[in-house]
Amino acid sequence: MSRRFVLTLSCPDRPGIVAAVASTLANLGGNILESQQFDDPRTGRFFMRVLLEPVAGESIEEAHLRGAIAAVAQRFEMDFDLRLADAPYRTILMVSKFGHCLNDLLFRWRSGGIAMDVAAVVSNHRDLEPLVASYGVPFHYLPVTPQTKAEAEAALLTLVEELDVDLVVLARYMQILSDGLTQRMSGRIINIHHSFLPSFKGAKPYHQAYERGVKLVGATAHYVTADLDEGPIIEQDAIRVDHRMAPEDLVRAGQECEERVLARALRWHCESRVMLAGDRTVVFS
Amino acid sequence: MSRRFVLTLSCPDRPGIVAAVASTLANLGGNILESQQFDDPRTGRFFMRVLLEPVAGESIEEAHLRGAIAAVAQRFEMDFDLRLADAPYRTILMVSKFGHCLNDLLFRWRSGGIAMDVAAVVSNHRDLEPLVASYGVPFHYLPVTPQTKAEAEAALLTLVEELDVDLVVLARYMQILSDGLTQRMSGRIINIHHSFLPSFKGAKPYHQAYERGVKLVGATAHYVTADLDEGPIIEQDAIRVDHRMAPEDLVRAGQECEERVLARALRWHCESRVMLAGDRTVVFS
Amino acid sequence: MSRRFVLTLSCPDRPGIVAAVASTLANLGGNILESQQFDDPRTGRFFMRVLLEPVAGESIEEAHLRGAIAAVAQRFEMDFDLRLADAPYRTILMVSKFGHCLNDLLFRWRSGGIAMDVAAVVSNHRDLEPLVASYGVPFHYLPVTPQTKAEAEAALLTLVEELDVDLVVLARYMQILSDGLTQRMSGRIINIHHSFLPSFKGAKPYHQAYERGVKLVGATAHYVTADLDEGPIIEQDAIRVDHRMAPEDLVRAGQECEERVLARALRWHCESRVMLAGDRTVVFS
Amino acid sequence: MSRRFVLTLSCPDRPGIVAAVASTLANLGGNILESQQFDDPRTGRFFMRVLLEPVAGESIEEAHLRGAIAAVAQRFEMDFDLRLADAPYRTILMVSKFGHCLNDLLFRWRSGGIAMDVAAVVSNHRDLEPLVASYGVPFHYLPVTPQTKAEAEAALLTLVEELDVDLVVLARYMQILSDGLTQRMSGRIINIHHSFLPSFKGAKPYHQAYERGVKLVGATAHYVTADLDEGPIIEQDAIRVDHRMAPEDLVRAGQECEERVLARALRWHCESRVMLAGDRTVVFS
Repeated sequence: MSRRFVLTLSCPDRPGIVAAVASTLANLGGNILESQQFDDPRTGRFFMRVLLEPVAGESIEEAHLRGAIAAVAQRFEMDFDLRLADAPYRTILMVSKFGHCLNDLLFRWRSGGIAMDVAAVVSNHRDLEPLVASYGVPFHYLPVTPQTKAEAEAALLTLVEELDVDLVVLARYMQILSDGLTQRMSGRIINIHHSFLPSFKGAKPYHQAYERGVKLVGATAHYVTADLDEGPIIEQDAIRVDHRMAPEDLVRAGQECEERVLARALRWHCESRVMLAGDRTVVFS
Repeated sequence: MSRRFVLTLSCPDRPGIVAAVASTLANLGGNILESQQFDDPRTGRFFMRVLLEPVAGESIEEAHLRGAIAAVAQRFEMDFDLRLADAPYRTILMVSKFGHCLNDLLFRWRSGGIAMDVAAVVSNHRDLEPLVASYGVPFHYLPVTPQTKAEAEAALLTLVEELDVDLVVLARYMQILSDGLTQRMSGRIINIHHSFLPSFKGAKPYHQAYERGVKLVGATAHYVTADLDEGPIIEQDAIRVDHRMAPEDLVRAGQECEERVLARALRWHCESRVMLAGDRTVVFS
Repeated sequence: MSRRFVLTLSCPDRPGIVAAVASTLANLGGNILESQQFDDPRTGRFFMRVLLEPVAGESIEEAHLRGAIAAVAQRFEMDFDLRLADAPYRTILMVSKFGHCLNDLLFRWRSGGIAMDVAAVVSNHRDLEPLVASYGVPFHYLPVTPQTKAEAEAALLTLVEELDVDLVVLARYMQILSDGLTQRMSGRIINIHHSFLPSFKGAKPYHQAYERGVKLVGATAHYVTADLDEGPIIEQDAIRVDHRMAPEDLVRAGQECEERVLARALRWHCESRVMLAGDRTVVFS
Repeated sequence: MSRRFVLTLSCPDRPGIVAAVASTLANLGGNILESQQFDDPRTGRFFMRVLLEPVAGESIEEAHLRGAIAAVAQRFEMDFDLRLADAPYRTILMVSKFGHCLNDLLFRWRSGGIAMDVAAVVSNHRDLEPLVASYGVPFHYLPVTPQTKAEAEAALLTLVEELDVDLVVLARYMQILSDGLTQRMSGRIINIHHSFLPSFKGAKPYHQAYERGVKLVGATAHYVTADLDEGPIIEQDAIRVDHRMAPEDLVRAGQECEERVLARALRWHCESRVMLAGDRTVVFS
């Protein structure tokens, strides 16, 4: 059975990149199934994603493919990433007490809707342990106080290493991560912010939205950086609200939005469709 | 031919308001076609809008109706407004150089889509004079400099009085009105802000949105207050954008949104569907 | 503690209905918190929904209230329904093998997002039994073949009676109910149709949508009638798709839509916001 | 000043296409700014769109480029089209009495929002002549009766030839074109259908939608084929409606949808982003 690869790359823009990449892949017997590219005028960089399979009846050895791409990459000063297309991202989901995103993600994962392996769920509360148990997923209770925060983060990092985790998802995890942790896992932590960033940063955004009398509330999935609420945005959506809705109604409406936005961002990330372009993202959705 | 009335009212919430209003109208031979109400827990006030027609074969005299309502209003400390349902709002549209909202509003007005009379168009530039002329609407060129601003606003107020104007619409008018003017015409000036307030206040919101890498851009129609970009929101909407779009593409996408949002806000205002509840709005859409 | 009531009613339209209802409620010490009404020109009927609470410090006896309303109802030839506002609808959820709607509804119910009691889950397959068990809800396996269909429906009706059920929800239940059953439970069975009715009726709608090359797929929640795919529509929504999506991608996109649409329809039904107006619905959302 | 080209091509899918195209363009000094491709499993064909500019300081001669591509095309049995990216599509807009789409398109064209040249407006009524005149565009009145239909279509074809027209847009033109005409101009006539196809084909779709009690109405832009209402769909959208809306309200809501859908379809067509894949479209939006 033939194996598919996903190649993502970025480099300073200059002529001949597509020709060089496409020729290299063709010479190795690779058939390009999907290809998307983007010239970013803002950063001057070129971004590309290729889905590749061996020509019918053939196979491609990964090491061989990696070597050939590395040679092109050196010539064009490329960063690149090569993955087997069906290799799921190893993921830790982190939650506090709100379980709507967790429930949605676990169900989608089990139904095959997101190309991830949920290696563990980590929480600073025990409320969602039964839900996690019903999916047979290990649940790690890591309570966080000002005194235990460093310890909890160290335990998290140990889990990340022991479980060979690619991605941490803050699925309504209500603790702020330290700068050290976010830098160390840069581009590998996704947060769902329960607001339409950059509006209503900080605490209780739906109550802020209520006070301001907005007619839409939204949610934002973004990579986590040291600068809270300011990481590169992956996906956003909004939902209509009206004057009759109390803050708790806005919360409920917003939670629907959060679920959808986080699920989309996660699906795209786990198909290697999201690339960082400075403090913005390129999403080859 | 029977005439319909629109009654809007608000007062401190207490029992018996609906019974008192409905009985008064029934006793005068009025048939309630539409009725909407809202108890605002935030302000403790009750809001109501009624569309009324005379019972078949009868007619209702406006002065008589107004008197009967005034009696109820006094009892419940009500503010109320009574209008003939088919009496269009006399409107001045103000623009600068961008004509997309103006073009959309003039066409809708001519097609009967908004219950207004466009009494005049006022602009600080001459660019849109031909478009206005093609609709046979008077065009007033009132240039604004720091030196002439007071004079231009005085001229505007004169027009408002002479033309018996109910409503001024800033359909991408790029000048800031003075506090005096906004206070004097409180609740009677609608602005379209080319951003999803409260995000990206101030100048060049689409460029700000581009820099931030958002995945939605929006627009906000609101009443104008002295506090710029902070007036009560009537309507908002948003539209998807992506990494490939340059600032000028965001501008184009946003303009579609502006048109729709302003047209909806204006349609609702001109059907007496929008009421002020402190710094928020009640929209009986 | 004061108890709230929801009153819904409909009758031939004529003057004085609102005044009569509002006065009756005011005389009993009832304060109207919400009121919505609609004159349907298509059927000539008037529809009304009232949310009522006793005036502060008082209480209203249900029998007393019911009697007073019955008197008004007789005068105006009204159908009416009176419920305690916090009395959840007793509900049976029916499923086959697709569990996305079931998972979503169970989680929302547990989180308090829908005012129902899930009395049981009924299925013609065993696949979803573990999910149901994790919520502690009784699961009834009622397999259906042409030979056992009558028997299975009889068993369902027995459950409806024994469990005092108000509502049956077909949350992707892939069997057609008999005419006898649908007539007997008219207005009390809600189905989610995995298509944007009236497009793509019948089997495999997403494959039909793929073949037609549509750019949106949708879902429809409706009351079940003998005429399959033709019952009164409660709610619909649609989601963008494109040429790159295979039928299975349309299925996934459509399932998101189904969840949202069914949850909204069910929430509104369980707040007594949906009324039948012939073969259409009035939704006081 | 350097000139950009848009290349679109399709051919039976096989390995090496991207490499061959990209190398050919690179050898001629072309820099690929955008590239999108799609392997259609349904038809077994490969589709590609490339936006190309000469390497800085160079220029590419069109004939030279065309020759080089033709050589590749022969090898891969390709259909291809090469255009200067800034060459507007020469367009005839056809209307009857509803002017909302016409007004929207003329304004967008004048504002630079659609890469077309409006060569003429053709109508079977005189109602919209003043609007067209205000844009300085030639207006051709071609009345249609059963007796004059052939003559009117002949006159249209003469205009298409004399004005060197690439595209005919039926912007709410209420006459059915003959099979001969649609075949002759296959892929070059775009219609806006005032319904969410395949629902509510035929006449008065909004009245049909009202009777059915749907909660969304939509619009569909499609290429015109002999089989009315069945041509390849380019774009669709939908808008929420509710029980309170009369048929004329659905018409108004639907017209907003029609404007947006037709403008998007036209913008994409005029940027060579739409390709035919059998009876479906590939839209590289």
